[in-house]
Amino acid sequence: MTTEITLDNIEDLAIGSAFLGTGGGGDPYLGMLLCREALTKYGPVKLVSVDDLADADNVFVAAAIGAPTVMIEKLFSVEDQHYAVNLLEQYLGRSANAIISAEIGGCNSMMPVAYAAMRGLPLVDGDGMGRAFPELQMTAMAVNGISVAPMTLADEHGNSLLIQTKDAKKAERLARPVVAEMGASLCMSCYPMTGTEARTGVVRDTISAALSIGKAVRNSGDNASSAIERLVGALQGHNYYRDAYRLFDGKITEIERNTSKGWVTGRCMISALFGQGEAELIFRNENLVMYVDGQLRCVVPDLITVVDQETGHAIPTERLAYGQRVAVIGCSAPPPLKTEAALKVMGPQEFGLGETYVPIRQLMEKH
Amino acid sequence: MTTEITLDNIEDLAIGSAFLGTGGGGDPYLGMLLCREALTKYGPVKLVSVDDLADADNVFVAAAIGAPTVMIEKLFSVEDQHYAVNLLEQYLGRSANAIISAEIGGCNSMMPVAYAAMRGLPLVDGDGMGRAFPELQMTAMAVNGISVAPMTLADEHGNSLLIQTKDAKKAERLARPVVAEMGASLCMSCYPMTGTEARTGVVRDTISAALSIGKAVRNSGDNASSAIERLVGALQGHNYYRDAYRLFDGKITEIERNTSKGWVTGRCMISALFGQGEAELIFRNENLVMYVDGQLRCVVPDLITVVDQETGHAIPTERLAYGQRVAVIGCSAPPPLKTEAALKVMGPQEFGLGETYVPIRQLMEKH
Repeated sequence: MTTEITLDNIEDLAIGSAFLGTGGGGDPYLGMLLCREALTKYGPVKLVSVDDLADADNVFVAAAIGAPTVMIEKLFSVEDQHYAVNLLEQYLGRSANAIISAEIGGCNSMMPVAYAAMRGLPLVDGDGMGRAFPELQMTAMAVNGISVAPMTLADEHGNSLLIQTKDAKKAERLARPVVAEMGASLCMSCYPMTGTEARTGVVRDTISAALSIGKAVRNSGDNASSAIERLVGALQGHNYYRDAYRLFDGKITEIERNTSKGWVTGRCMISALFGQGEAELIFRNENLVMYVDGQLRCVVPDLITVVDQETGHAIPTERLAYGQRVAVIGCSAPPPLKTEAALKVMGPQEFGLGETYVPIRQLMEKH
Repeated sequence: MTTEITLDNIEDLAIGSAFLGTGGGGDPYLGMLLCREALTKYGPVKLVSVDDLADADNVFVAAAIGAPTVMIEKLFSVEDQHYAVNLLEQYLGRSANAIISAEIGGCNSMMPVAYAAMRGLPLVDGDGMGRAFPELQMTAMAVNGISVAPMTLADEHGNSLLIQTKDAKKAERLARPVVAEMGASLCMSCYPMTGTEARTGVVRDTISAALSIGKAVRNSGDNASSAIERLVGALQGHNYYRDAYRLFDGKITEIERNTSKGWVTGRCMISALFGQGEAELIFRNENLVMYVDGQLRCVVPDLITVVDQETGHAIPTERLAYGQRVAVIGCSAPPPLKTEAALKVMGPQEFGLGETYVPIRQLMEKH
């Protein structure tokens, strides 16, 4: 098992996280630059299992919140991240022993690495989602009774904010307008946990999962296999993502995208390059549901990612474009996302979809 | 000098504060009910001069923030106020020794009384404005270099929020959207001060000023004088408000009011009942500027209040109505509001007016 994040495997993490972002979560490539700088300056980051945490360890989330489109323009710094974590430490009167990612999918996989490097702290191998989701309450921690608050937000001008609430959905609704006022892209800390809480609360081992997915995609030594074959193989070899399918191959023939209220909602049609068949993909920041010829093939919280047919790299929803040759990959979500309680927080209904959740494996066995 | 606030003089405070609200600041009559309950339960509140504070005393603001129209529907409780003050105490690691009002004009004169009663703490005879203003940065404290932050907001559901910023205007801009999301009417604490800071930072003796103004208006024992004559007399006898004039008497013949972005902006025309003359009043929450036959008579930060011709009671801008018989009273603002530094924060330009500040006395001496 990988026990360190270094300059050598940081790109694996970025590629794997982009896949787990299921079209959303922001572009991890920019965060990778930040990580490279931090890893060069401070050295490698130790990766620890939740099982290796002491019960009383203080695990703090390092994260970004805001519009991915703005994050591209306004890069983060570890100093801004420190404002957010430090305000929380100051308020709680205790210091971080370990850093954790709230969301492995997308750019939120990156800042925790750079920040852990700066603090000289270990990074927990795990996160709150095992993929990407658009809202603060959509985490395994919230489902497992860990409070999102106290949570903190900080901008690059030294302005910061602490929110106290018992309700994670309320935290989301309070934070969102502040994020807009503070520049649409902020650093955040939330879900402060003890080691004991982290063991029962988070989705385990997702950093190493992203590393292995990214490594498989990037490994061009094996000429006999394509990047997509290696990607699907890596997913099938993983404990969470093993029900993995290449759902459809084709060319994007139609794309509708509507950016409003901070969301990118839309629909993408993909037509088979040879022969018959048409796939429909519906997204809101992340890809939510996918049909082939009108038949349901995969629905949230299971993962749907559109990848480039040649490179196997994930294409975020904001970069889907007419004429792209793509494959759609679907795979099973980590078990903590599929409990009855979890589906009430991150199931299809929470996104306004008419579908109820059916595991991808069941859907595919019908065909 | 009055040294206690009791069930006997709380109505004086409400009437005087309504006058000092210059048309804004919310209706203090509802807050009076809250105070009556608290004074009955906990006993009178001791009023202390800033000179009686120890240097290291911790002076905490108790205040409401939001839309006065919502405050009428959603009454405050001292418990909600305690959430806000207590979060600030917890964050700063020190407890309040005295409570102070941020704004003597309007309803923010009342909550500090009820809260001081509940806490068994003295109330400082003073406030941040000596009148009412619509924004957080428009205080003598801000002008005197005292930081608005850390500041806290709390609602009736146990949600609370702490803001850290060096810029009082930024605090205003961060707080406003949160206030909307938290129900448009919240309890707040801000501008935490030591006794030393309070001595140089606040507008002194304004609680006793409001008490004496209210007492004069209410005193119907003296049949020889009208309420308005007594009101103007009380103002003329006061250190701050002594340049006091009955600017105009008449009937409201036109009223334009526009509620948007949390402000009530508008214009009111008043025609002389007998003879010639027309007055124009411009307001944004508070009355800002007043003209008679096109000639400037009074401009912010000097005070302009429309009062009922019979009772002498202040009429808030949201209750101005066609046909009302009114008098317009103008008077000088407390000196801390008229320094060069203060005029940059609360002068006419800050409200988008074309006028520059000329003291009411100078304007009236021309006529």
